[in-house]
Amino acid sequence: MKTLAELAQIQDLEFKGDGNLLLKSVATLENATHDQITFLANPSYTKFLNQTKAGAVILSATAAESYQGNALISNNPYVTFARIAQLFHSINENTMKAQTEIHSSAVVSEKVKLGGFVAVGPLSFIGDDVVIGDNCVIGSQVSIGDGVKLGSDCQIKAGVKIEAGTVIGDRVIVHPGAVIGADGFGLARDKSGWVKIPQTGIVEIGDDCEIGANTTIDCGAIENTKLGNDVRLDNQIQIGHNVQIGDHTVIAGCTAVAGSTKIGKNCFIGGGVGIVGHIEICDGVTIQAMALVTHSITEADSYSSVAPLQPTKQWRRNAVRVKQLDQLTKRVKQLEKNIDD
Amino acid sequence: MKTLAELAQIQDLEFKGDGNLLLKSVATLENATHDQITFLANPSYTKFLNQTKAGAVILSATAAESYQGNALISNNPYVTFARIAQLFHSINENTMKAQTEIHSSAVVSEKVKLGGFVAVGPLSFIGDDVVIGDNCVIGSQVSIGDGVKLGSDCQIKAGVKIEAGTVIGDRVIVHPGAVIGADGFGLARDKSGWVKIPQTGIVEIGDDCEIGANTTIDCGAIENTKLGNDVRLDNQIQIGHNVQIGDHTVIAGCTAVAGSTKIGKNCFIGGGVGIVGHIEICDGVTIQAMALVTHSITEADSYSSVAPLQPTKQWRRNAVRVKQLDQLTKRVKQLEKNIDD
Amino acid sequence: MKTLAELAQIQDLEFKGDGNLLLKSVATLENATHDQITFLANPSYTKFLNQTKAGAVILSATAAESYQGNALISNNPYVTFARIAQLFHSINENTMKAQTEIHSSAVVSEKVKLGGFVAVGPLSFIGDDVVIGDNCVIGSQVSIGDGVKLGSDCQIKAGVKIEAGTVIGDRVIVHPGAVIGADGFGLARDKSGWVKIPQTGIVEIGDDCEIGANTTIDCGAIENTKLGNDVRLDNQIQIGHNVQIGDHTVIAGCTAVAGSTKIGKNCFIGGGVGIVGHIEICDGVTIQAMALVTHSITEADSYSSVAPLQPTKQWRRNAVRVKQLDQLTKRVKQLEKNIDD
Repeated sequence: MKTLAELAQIQDLEFKGDGNLLLKSVATLENATHDQITFLANPSYTKFLNQTKAGAVILSATAAESYQGNALISNNPYVTFARIAQLFHSINENTMKAQTEIHSSAVVSEKVKLGGFVAVGPLSFIGDDVVIGDNCVIGSQVSIGDGVKLGSDCQIKAGVKIEAGTVIGDRVIVHPGAVIGADGFGLARDKSGWVKIPQTGIVEIGDDCEIGANTTIDCGAIENTKLGNDVRLDNQIQIGHNVQIGDHTVIAGCTAVAGSTKIGKNCFIGGGVGIVGHIEICDGVTIQAMALVTHSITEADSYSSVAPLQPTKQWRRNAVRVKQLDQLTKRVKQLEKNIDD
Repeated sequence: MKTLAELAQIQDLEFKGDGNLLLKSVATLENATHDQITFLANPSYTKFLNQTKAGAVILSATAAESYQGNALISNNPYVTFARIAQLFHSINENTMKAQTEIHSSAVVSEKVKLGGFVAVGPLSFIGDDVVIGDNCVIGSQVSIGDGVKLGSDCQIKAGVKIEAGTVIGDRVIVHPGAVIGADGFGLARDKSGWVKIPQTGIVEIGDDCEIGANTTIDCGAIENTKLGNDVRLDNQIQIGHNVQIGDHTVIAGCTAVAGSTKIGKNCFIGGGVGIVGHIEICDGVTIQAMALVTHSITEADSYSSVAPLQPTKQWRRNAVRVKQLDQLTKRVKQLEKNIDD
Repeated sequence: MKTLAELAQIQDLEFKGDGNLLLKSVATLENATHDQITFLANPSYTKFLNQTKAGAVILSATAAESYQGNALISNNPYVTFARIAQLFHSINENTMKAQTEIHSSAVVSEKVKLGGFVAVGPLSFIGDDVVIGDNCVIGSQVSIGDGVKLGSDCQIKAGVKIEAGTVIGDRVIVHPGAVIGADGFGLARDKSGWVKIPQTGIVEIGDDCEIGANTTIDCGAIENTKLGNDVRLDNQIQIGHNVQIGDHTVIAGCTAVAGSTKIGKNCFIGGGVGIVGHIEICDGVTIQAMALVTHSITEADSYSSVAPLQPTKQWRRNAVRVKQLDQLTKRVKQLEKNIDD
């Protein structure tokens, strides 16, 4: 529990209203109660502001002016909400239990170097020559291969598989079922069939990254696959061998990046996107959901390629015309010529 | 083994032909033999009916009229087939073995409440305060986090990870590698980088649901992610935080649903579909494979958005015209104007 | 370490330059050093050839003519590179350690038949009546269900789940998190809801296949799901029940193949492709990335269906016209008629 005044002080913000009000957690505008704090960031939710039963609301200075209730005033209400949610989350988690032990069922090599306050969950495996920094929490049934290096304050959740040699920075979170450092897809075609190309590079991940559930990041073929700092990957993303992703780039779920492609910093890649191999995407690019990127992008802008949704009956009539579009264009050209003549 | 007459009695159906015929399993029309039962539901397979060597065939009354062999007569041959297949499957499974023990290698918290006839497979982990109903079968290397509640008659297959707090109903099947309750993808952008928003909601799953292999269902950000009853998800589906899915809705493989979207009851969502966040899809909607749904749908209908497949050489000529389509439309408008003048 | 002359002899190739040069590993043209060998296969990298510091380069006879440094001459430099990379990889791996033991934490049924030199990693589970051939390496936390048959020289990586009854050939590699033999998605609709159709077939995989990380291959509904020999699947691919895939076919990441579809030999299916159920694709077909295949393909060719990427602002203007395309075509027809009249 924190008072509104305490929250304002911790976040270095102004507040308005009852500073002694006790708050215990965060909630939505619609469902918050008297001991919860909420926020307004998306203007389309303004309609809920006057009906909210929240103890306090995080608001911009402008929005706070016309609001009668208790408010915490922030230039960026969503970031302030995130920080306060983190604060309450860590308070509530800590009162539950501290998990700083190696579970007796875990299999941990003797040739391992663990920092202070490292927890290893049940039935996890840690191989030879692994180095794990301070305050890391390894969940249940995790596998960490030989020679992996993990920074401090990392969270590796249930069932994650980190293959041999992977290097991960500080404060990285890897969600359940993610696979880091599996072989890339490298094949050469001989007369009799496919010849596998050994994948001898590793995966390097910077600080403050987040890797979603069941996401896969392949190791490099010869050189390394690299994620910068503060790269955020959602669930079920596929990152091919030798891919490089710049700092602060965010990728939504189910997107696939093929081998050797370089993605810049501060990009925002939507969900279900496909990016072919061996291209470069510059800094600051946005790719809309399910687009296919087939060539390098050199200008920071938003890009799309998906046709709009239609009722299937109408769509079928249009779809058949898409197959005749070149012909149609030529017919229009002929008409223009005929009229000119 | 059951006789044709016994099967008819159990299913409360009429039969035609030799009621004493012994049947041991189900098969396809093409490959069934004298002691197997098969079915005809899809008219395009009618050609195989007169060649089948099946002991008996499940048929509609109309189809049975012109069929000379043994038949079980049903208004819905496919459903009857499903029920008979279930019957034979459970007979054959039961003769193999009953797995109702906690394997000695499993790690099960002392603070767990197990129903009757619960099996826990090798190397599985069950956390504190978990409640598991009667007749549940937990496979190998499953992880069930603290406080998870599981109804009765559930099957949780190998390697499934169910994160803390998840609530699951009765008769739910979760296939290998699925991850339920991992953090949603919630980030706020501060000047220096991304700030993680703690994901404090849970996942609630109703009765009779099926969750496919390597499918991921994120926990709610603040409130909960909810699947109704009899929701059927295929493999490698991604369900974002706070999503709600209505009863009897079916989703095919590799589809992604972004955060806070509500999908109605009795929807049929094809494979590889993308559904953006914060929209609503009403009851009874069909989405064709690989369509992108970018806005709410308020009318029960079938929807599509994907261009038809063409040989690449032809497609390239059309594809370049798609990029000029607005211009082409304007040229046509100009032609119309010229002719009118 | 091998000399250039030794490598030439092992590969049965000619070389040019210093045969006594010692080489220890492979590298890229850009980054190779004096004791490394590299290759030139893609002409777009020719610019790096004259700057390379590699000890030797694998080149075609033509390219070797104008190259001054040490060269190994091959009709197929990429395949030669693959074979030499394999050679160095196995030399370097073998000097590290031989893992041919059953880890004490593994749970292995007594009713199992293991070949010679089989390794089973920590915390893995092997069920009853499993047969595993010589020289197989099973990683950590693998689950192999009852009755599974595995040929010789297979590598099953961390966290793979192979369900009961699966049959796998020789020299097959399965990458972390893959699920083989989970239930297919089979449902019949009754008035009250969905009835599950028991999935009683298995998965059969031939020799020399590779299955990517977190890929899922469903068991057959009644008959079997079948991969031929030398089928190569990348990560996060979904293969539905009863699918058949011919020899040497390669599928890139995140592609989904729906149930009962047959794909021929020597096909090349790009990433993110969707292939609907119950169709046939003939031998030698190429499908471009993210295309949707909605009907059978009877001619070996390359096929596409995705619109080209555009800046979102321009795309929106064109996208709205796609929805009016049938109408536009009719307007052009009317213009043609008017001009004819």
